[in-house]
Amino acid sequence: MTVERQSNTINMTSHPILIDGEWRASDATGTFSACNPTNGETLADVYPVSSQSDVELALQASATAAAELRALHDRDERIAAFLEQFAVNIESRTEAIVAAAHLETALPVAPRLKEVELPRTTNQLRHAAEAARDGSWRRPTIDAKAGLRSYLAPIGPVWILGPNNFPFAFNAISGGDFAAAVAAGNPVIAKAHPSHPTTCRLLAEAAHDAIGVAKLPRGTVQMIYQIAVEDGLRMIADPRLKAIAFTGSRHAGMKLKAAADASGKAFFGEMSSVNPVVFLPGAVAEKQDALVSEFVSSVLLGTGQFCTNPGLIFMLAGAQTEAFIQSAVEKMKAAPVGALFSELGRRSLLVAIETIRTAGAELLVGGAESNGPGFRVENTLLRATARQFLAKPREMQTEAFGNSALIVVAESLTELKAALETLEGNLTGCVYSAAGGSDDAAYDEIAPILRPRVGRLINDKMPTGVAVSPAMNHGGPYPATSSPHFTAVGVPASLLRFTQLESFDNVRPHRLPACLQNANPTGKMQRYIDGRWTSDDVS
Amino acid sequence: MTVERQSNTINMTSHPILIDGEWRASDATGTFSACNPTNGETLADVYPVSSQSDVELALQASATAAAELRALHDRDERIAAFLEQFAVNIESRTEAIVAAAHLETALPVAPRLKEVELPRTTNQLRHAAEAARDGSWRRPTIDAKAGLRSYLAPIGPVWILGPNNFPFAFNAISGGDFAAAVAAGNPVIAKAHPSHPTTCRLLAEAAHDAIGVAKLPRGTVQMIYQIAVEDGLRMIADPRLKAIAFTGSRHAGMKLKAAADASGKAFFGEMSSVNPVVFLPGAVAEKQDALVSEFVSSVLLGTGQFCTNPGLIFMLAGAQTEAFIQSAVEKMKAAPVGALFSELGRRSLLVAIETIRTAGAELLVGGAESNGPGFRVENTLLRATARQFLAKPREMQTEAFGNSALIVVAESLTELKAALETLEGNLTGCVYSAAGGSDDAAYDEIAPILRPRVGRLINDKMPTGVAVSPAMNHGGPYPATSSPHFTAVGVPASLLRFTQLESFDNVRPHRLPACLQNANPTGKMQRYIDGRWTSDDVS
Repeated sequence: MTVERQSNTINMTSHPILIDGEWRASDATGTFSACNPTNGETLADVYPVSSQSDVELALQASATAAAELRALHDRDERIAAFLEQFAVNIESRTEAIVAAAHLETALPVAPRLKEVELPRTTNQLRHAAEAARDGSWRRPTIDAKAGLRSYLAPIGPVWILGPNNFPFAFNAISGGDFAAAVAAGNPVIAKAHPSHPTTCRLLAEAAHDAIGVAKLPRGTVQMIYQIAVEDGLRMIADPRLKAIAFTGSRHAGMKLKAAADASGKAFFGEMSSVNPVVFLPGAVAEKQDALVSEFVSSVLLGTGQFCTNPGLIFMLAGAQTEAFIQSAVEKMKAAPVGALFSELGRRSLLVAIETIRTAGAELLVGGAESNGPGFRVENTLLRATARQFLAKPREMQTEAFGNSALIVVAESLTELKAALETLEGNLTGCVYSAAGGSDDAAYDEIAPILRPRVGRLINDKMPTGVAVSPAMNHGGPYPATSSPHFTAVGVPASLLRFTQLESFDNVRPHRLPACLQNANPTGKMQRYIDGRWTSDDVS
Repeated sequence: MTVERQSNTINMTSHPILIDGEWRASDATGTFSACNPTNGETLADVYPVSSQSDVELALQASATAAAELRALHDRDERIAAFLEQFAVNIESRTEAIVAAAHLETALPVAPRLKEVELPRTTNQLRHAAEAARDGSWRRPTIDAKAGLRSYLAPIGPVWILGPNNFPFAFNAISGGDFAAAVAAGNPVIAKAHPSHPTTCRLLAEAAHDAIGVAKLPRGTVQMIYQIAVEDGLRMIADPRLKAIAFTGSRHAGMKLKAAADASGKAFFGEMSSVNPVVFLPGAVAEKQDALVSEFVSSVLLGTGQFCTNPGLIFMLAGAQTEAFIQSAVEKMKAAPVGALFSELGRRSLLVAIETIRTAGAELLVGGAESNGPGFRVENTLLRATARQFLAKPREMQTEAFGNSALIVVAESLTELKAALETLEGNLTGCVYSAAGGSDDAAYDEIAPILRPRVGRLINDKMPTGVAVSPAMNHGGPYPATSSPHFTAVGVPASLLRFTQLESFDNVRPHRLPACLQNANPTGKMQRYIDGRWTSDDVS
């Protein structure tokens, strides 16, 4: 929600916004441009900061589209066609989209943007299309005798705000939240990320072109680039908006969540996580070198700008742990220092490192700005005793979003368990234990503490891989996310966020939605009929 | 959350509270007694107002029980056995429980308490037991190739606050929220309702005796009677508490919701609903007398103290509507005036009626205190034009909890639709249309407006019957409830509220919960394995 107001007079050359099926000039209150993170230089494209009148148009078109989508008999098929066409459009524009994202984020073209993130994004869109067609996840439930039928219906207009660190796969106009909200039958208002507006524009163009092909209502997909914080909070309170999905910093997320809570809106925020990793002694003894390499690679991946970055390591004191730490320090020193996304990101990282130091941690390596073009901080490793951690558990759990981690060394398993008991909610938690079984007793004591505090419990590998799988949970207890029940990644589960339960009581058969009529609408949909999951018709 | 502090010195004869598996003397800050609503007289039993130290014991025992429940390999079977034994215990104590509830609520012994609500309550407990054993609703999901498995795990300690109007079926210690939270694998702290503490005590004794038989952890079921508002809000913020379920007034619900939101807790509140009913002209023409009778019976049922009471009626202007209203007035006048639960209830009802009148509605009948023992208000009917309604939509939608309704008469379908567009979220919405089809065009225009605004859409019958069915939705958009995704009635859907999604990534097979191991733990559990719903083992 940061806004760079470069001028008070409106630059008439700023790019148009996508409203009600058209690219229209914004009624802008200002303009902004992104910058190239590798050298800090401002990029040429100029984008508008939208006023309340832009927002009003978007909300009204979104409400109209929500009603139109509800009325479409072949909505799910059209939505699936849209998502698939959108994926095709992205693929056919790969070069331009990847080039823009590289320029705006400094993420490598290959393999990261072109070979990993872009295919992941189109893959997500296609999974969502399949889910839209399938519909079993809507939990169609029929109690024929009682005359009651229910299913998970679309919730209505969704506002999506994406993060900077995945310019395709989590983009508000193309990422997992977008795919899930649309596949669930809802119109979306996307807010572009101010650090990569051109990437967003190219993706929005690909989406817009697919909307026309699939003949969805005009207001189904809209995008604005930026609005003032207070206008955003007012937008959340508007009764036409029904849900908000956010991925980003805890600071911004908490503001949005407070506004959503105050107006009773569904809010799905992914806000922060330090992703604790426990290295048990037997695992370290078995393969210290490999573990150090895995850890250092993971913590430095994408300059550490991953939601699931392993930022907090727990180990038991001993010579072996000292050797592990020494080796990690050397590897961190030797590794190249990556660029961060923005000056704000650099400042936040330095502040977080300082918070952890002030709480008592010792700086082993890094901790300062680094030379080189763009925004860089030295690869950083801190260390604290479990006693120090327990004295300031909140401060020690500060998320240092970037190439930094804190290693906590406990004198005993009891102390380590006490430290784990203080953990806030996290997306992930990992335990490395010996293949030979020597850590099993310790595992059995710590896993029960870690399990309820994390969305995804991992054994023997780093958390930075987030597979697109129905069994994935990219979610977790507060404050990692706003609700431990839902996931942002994984189809069909991620779609559930954007639904409301609707029951039909004694409603005449021809007035029921297709998925609740006696005949199974696809012949394959799983429905819960009179106490039994089945794809049969109602007999 | 109202507290009657009858004395500052502790009455040593006050009943004990149920903490950590024992009936213990409360460290009370005061005491209270309920009263008999038929005559306003204070009842003999004295109950404690718990202090923070009681709450501390309950929270700690609850956290311990949550960990113990997670570790039990046969947890779901023990929980099912508990719920079934609890149902048996209630049945064997029917006479005493029904007598206490009758004395404390003035609800009729038969059929209401003994033949309807008590069997409904034991029925709910048995449905929940079946769900606990079945486990398919936990959505066990297995991606064998990716090494990822997930399911909906217990969320942790749940605090339940029940309403006054269903002393069994929604009681914090025996009702739908209780059954759902326990069946999902969680410990519960129940808060007794201050208007029917003896009913709660007898039910808690029945639960406590079943806990021992089923060998569940001691802290699985606990109950306190009353605490000060500020202590309750502090309890919500405590990190050991994971969810709150509340049924009651909007005023109290909003306070609890704000505290839950501020600490990121899962909150499920059912808070208010006026349950709009549209009588279309063709339906009235076909059977006016029957409809008037249905409406008047429904609005006066239980002296109107139903969450789903039809409090807001919409009709189109005309001679027939005048006749309908005249007949309804006569029937309201002729009907006996029931007792309300409390003096607070009477005052709130009178204030609500006054709010609706001040907003412009005309009083057709009733509106004042009624003679007779206990707390009574005359059967009340108000009337307003749609134009008046549209001028003050918020005030006109004030919930008058009791034997009162507002009839809004619109000059045209356009006006009626405009009025429906202003509706807040409601539990239910009904439309009566002609069997002959003459209202179908009007139905098709208004149902799309009503549908997204209500949890349960009803045709041609009153909303006051809430069947216990898997297809029921006793929920609805805010502010009827805190989330439109969940229901408080209906198994297994109501259990979902008390779960968190947990994913296991590369976790060694023997460390997985039973429902995620290769072998189907029951042979019947529905699991989503590699993209297919099946009860097969993982191959």
